[in-house]
Amino acid sequence: MKNSERTSRRHVLRIGAAAMGGGLLTQQKILALETPGQLGTPLGPYSERSPYEKAVRWTRQSKTPETGSSFTPLQDSVGTLTPSSLHYERHHAGIPTIDPNRHRLVIHGMVDRPLSLSVADIRRLPSVSRTMVLECGGNSGSEWAATTGPDVQRSFGLASCSEWTGVSLSLLLKEVGVRSGASWIIAEGADACRMERSVPLEKALDDALIAYGQNGEALRPSQGYPLRLLLPGWEGNTNVKWLRSMKLTDQPYMARDETSKYSDLMPDGKARIFTYAMEAKSVITFPSGGQTLPAHGLYELSGLAWSGRGRIERVEVTTDGGRTWVQAALQDPRLPIALTRFRLPWRFDGQAALIASRAVDETGYVQPTRAALIAARGTNSIYHYNGIKVWSVRADGTVTHVEA
Amino acid sequence: MKNSERTSRRHVLRIGAAAMGGGLLTQQKILALETPGQLGTPLGPYSERSPYEKAVRWTRQSKTPETGSSFTPLQDSVGTLTPSSLHYERHHAGIPTIDPNRHRLVIHGMVDRPLSLSVADIRRLPSVSRTMVLECGGNSGSEWAATTGPDVQRSFGLASCSEWTGVSLSLLLKEVGVRSGASWIIAEGADACRMERSVPLEKALDDALIAYGQNGEALRPSQGYPLRLLLPGWEGNTNVKWLRSMKLTDQPYMARDETSKYSDLMPDGKARIFTYAMEAKSVITFPSGGQTLPAHGLYELSGLAWSGRGRIERVEVTTDGGRTWVQAALQDPRLPIALTRFRLPWRFDGQAALIASRAVDETGYVQPTRAALIAARGTNSIYHYNGIKVWSVRADGTVTHVEA
Repeated sequence: MKNSERTSRRHVLRIGAAAMGGGLLTQQKILALETPGQLGTPLGPYSERSPYEKAVRWTRQSKTPETGSSFTPLQDSVGTLTPSSLHYERHHAGIPTIDPNRHRLVIHGMVDRPLSLSVADIRRLPSVSRTMVLECGGNSGSEWAATTGPDVQRSFGLASCSEWTGVSLSLLLKEVGVRSGASWIIAEGADACRMERSVPLEKALDDALIAYGQNGEALRPSQGYPLRLLLPGWEGNTNVKWLRSMKLTDQPYMARDETSKYSDLMPDGKARIFTYAMEAKSVITFPSGGQTLPAHGLYELSGLAWSGRGRIERVEVTTDGGRTWVQAALQDPRLPIALTRFRLPWRFDGQAALIASRAVDETGYVQPTRAALIAARGTNSIYHYNGIKVWSVRADGTVTHVEA
Repeated sequence: MKNSERTSRRHVLRIGAAAMGGGLLTQQKILALETPGQLGTPLGPYSERSPYEKAVRWTRQSKTPETGSSFTPLQDSVGTLTPSSLHYERHHAGIPTIDPNRHRLVIHGMVDRPLSLSVADIRRLPSVSRTMVLECGGNSGSEWAATTGPDVQRSFGLASCSEWTGVSLSLLLKEVGVRSGASWIIAEGADACRMERSVPLEKALDDALIAYGQNGEALRPSQGYPLRLLLPGWEGNTNVKWLRSMKLTDQPYMARDETSKYSDLMPDGKARIFTYAMEAKSVITFPSGGQTLPAHGLYELSGLAWSGRGRIERVEVTTDGGRTWVQAALQDPRLPIALTRFRLPWRFDGQAALIASRAVDETGYVQPTRAALIAARGTNSIYHYNGIKVWSVRADGTVTHVEA
C-alpha cells in the first residue's frame, strides 16, 4: 500500500493549487472580468451535448461499411455507464430501420403454443431492469498481435454498459410451452443477413431478457431497436439485435456466426466453439495510450473492470511494471456483469512508469497477463482476449501502448 | 394481496396471446413474408434514437423562453434512468455556452487559501459517481390548484435521474481551509442572471459534489456544463448549474431565488424558507393521464418513487380509489435518493378504476394524500408538493387526471 500512503488526500489539492498559480488577486480579477453575459439558449424539447465535447466512436475502415465494428471512446468515459450514442457497435449487414408497430417476435419450433408478439404486447408484460455490460467477443482482438492496440478505444472499446429494461425470456418460454427434447433456441435478427445464434435452453431459462429499453428510453437502432435478446455475461454477438424469431430445437444450427466466426482456433489446430462467457477483464482508461499528462503532480488513475461471471471482487493496479500491486477503490454499487469503475490516486514526477490493472471477479478468477493467455491459447484466436493491458507513461508525460 | 393472486404470471401471456389472434399458420406466414431486406445503415461515430421515437420535453409557454421549465416525458420512461437529452430543465436566464478550457471555479471568502480551479484541475482529483434523482422544488406545483395536471409529464415531470460523477466538495473545502465562523457557502452560476443560492456549510461538508460527468460523459449544457453543484436530496434549484464561484460566509445571502422564489407561503401568511429536502414521492407512469389501454386483459402497472432523504422502503398501490393498497415490486438496486421503479401486474376488464401509488422511504415517512398535504400547508405554496396522484381509468380504457 505504499502508493496509497504517498498520495493521501490531504496533499492532493495543495499540489494542484501550486500548479495553477492561483492567488486571491487572480481570483478576484477573474470574477470581476466575468461580468454577466447575454441570455443563453432558450429551453428546448430535446438537448444535445456541448459543442466542445467531441468524443465519437472509432470505426475500423472497411470496404463494406455495413459490416464492422465501431469502438466506444473509453478514454473519455467517466462513471460506469456508456452514453447510448457512444455504445459500441458490431454489425454484419448494417442497421435496419424498423417500424415498431409492424415488428413482431415469433416464438416457434418445439413448443406447444407458438406465439407472435408485437412490441406493444411485450411492453405490457412484467418487466425488469438490469444494468449490464455488453462486450463483443472480438473485443481486444488487436491484443493477440505482436503490435497491440495503441489506445484504449481501439484495444478495449468494444465494451459498453447500459441499464436495460425488458421481459424475462423464461416467462415467454413458460407461455409457449417448451416441448420435451428441446434443448436449444435459434435466435434470429431482422437485419438483412438474418444473423442467427444458437442459445442453450438452459441459459434462456436462467437470466435471458428480451429488452426494449436502454438507459431510460427505447433501445437505440444500433442496439437492436425495437427488441434485443440479452444474455447476461455472454459475448455480444449472442445478444441478437432486431430480434424477430426464436425457434426451439433439439440441436444448435452451427450458423455462420458460430462456426466461421466466433469460434477460437487453438494452437493444436482445433477450434473451441460456443465459448459464450466473457471472463474477467479490466483496463486503465486514464492515463492511457495517446493521452499526455500535462504536468507533474497528483492524478487520479482510473479505469473499468467487468466480468461475465458476476461481480468484480477487486482490482489491483501496478505502476512499476508489475513488481508491486496495490488495491484500487471500487465504485459502489458493484453490480454483477456491469462495468465497475476503479480509481487510485497516483503521483507523476517525471519518472517513466509502466502501469496496468488486473481484475479479480467473485468466482476468484484472476485476469491473466498477456503472456499467460497466449501460452494457453496461442495467437490464432481473434476472440475472448482478456489479458492485462500495460501502458507506458514516459518521462515527458506522454502515454503509449507497449509493444509485445 | 388479492391483486397479485389474480394476476399470477402463469396467466399473463395466455391472455395476451388470445388478444393477438396468434397461431402457427400466422407465424409462418409472417416469417415467410419478411424475407431478408436491403443492407441497413452503415456503422457510425455517434448514433441517435429511432425516428419512430418521438418523446420530447414539454415546455410551458413563456414570453421569455430563456426562463421557465421543460418537463421530462415520464409517461414514456422505462427503468430508472432519464436519458440526458430528456432530463428536465429549469433555467432563469437560458443555457450559457461555456468553453470548458476557459471556465474556472473560484472558492473564496472566509477561507485561508482561496483557489481558482480549471475544469482540468478538477478532473484530476479523486472522483466519485452517484446515481441520483434531481427534482425541481416546483415540481407538481400544478397539483396545488383545483385543476390538477392532466398527465404525468406536466404534473410530475420536473424530476429526472442520472449517474453523476464529480469531486467531493468536502475535499475542496479541506484544501482551502474554512475559517472559523464560516457557516454558509454562496454558490453562484455563470448564467446571465448569476443565479445564487445559500448552502449551509454542514451540507457542503456532508455529501455535496462538484459534478462534471452525467451518464458516462460530460454534463449536458442544460444541466450545467461544465460544472454543477450537486446537493443530494435537495431541491433542484440549489444544485447550481454552470458553477463558477463558491464564497464562504457567516450568513446566507437571502438571494432572489431563496426569498421571492423557492420559499413556501403558509396559510398563516408566514413563509417557510430554506426548505431544502425533497420529501418522499411517487407517481404511476403507466397507465397515466392521456394514455389509453388498448384492450382488456393484463397490464404491468408501473411508476417511479424517490425520496430526498434516502432509499425507498416500499411503494403501495391502490386500484380502487384508496380502499385497499397492495405492495408493488421494487427494482433493485434501490439506491438512496434515486428514482426507484415500482411494478405491479394489473388486470383491466372494463371496470372504471381510480389508481394511485404512495411511497414510504427509509425514514418511515409516508407520502401524504393531496388533502392531508393541503390541510397542513394550504394552497399558497408553489413548491414542495408531494401528494399522492390519482389517475382515473375509465371503462373505455382512457386515463385522465382527477379534478380535485
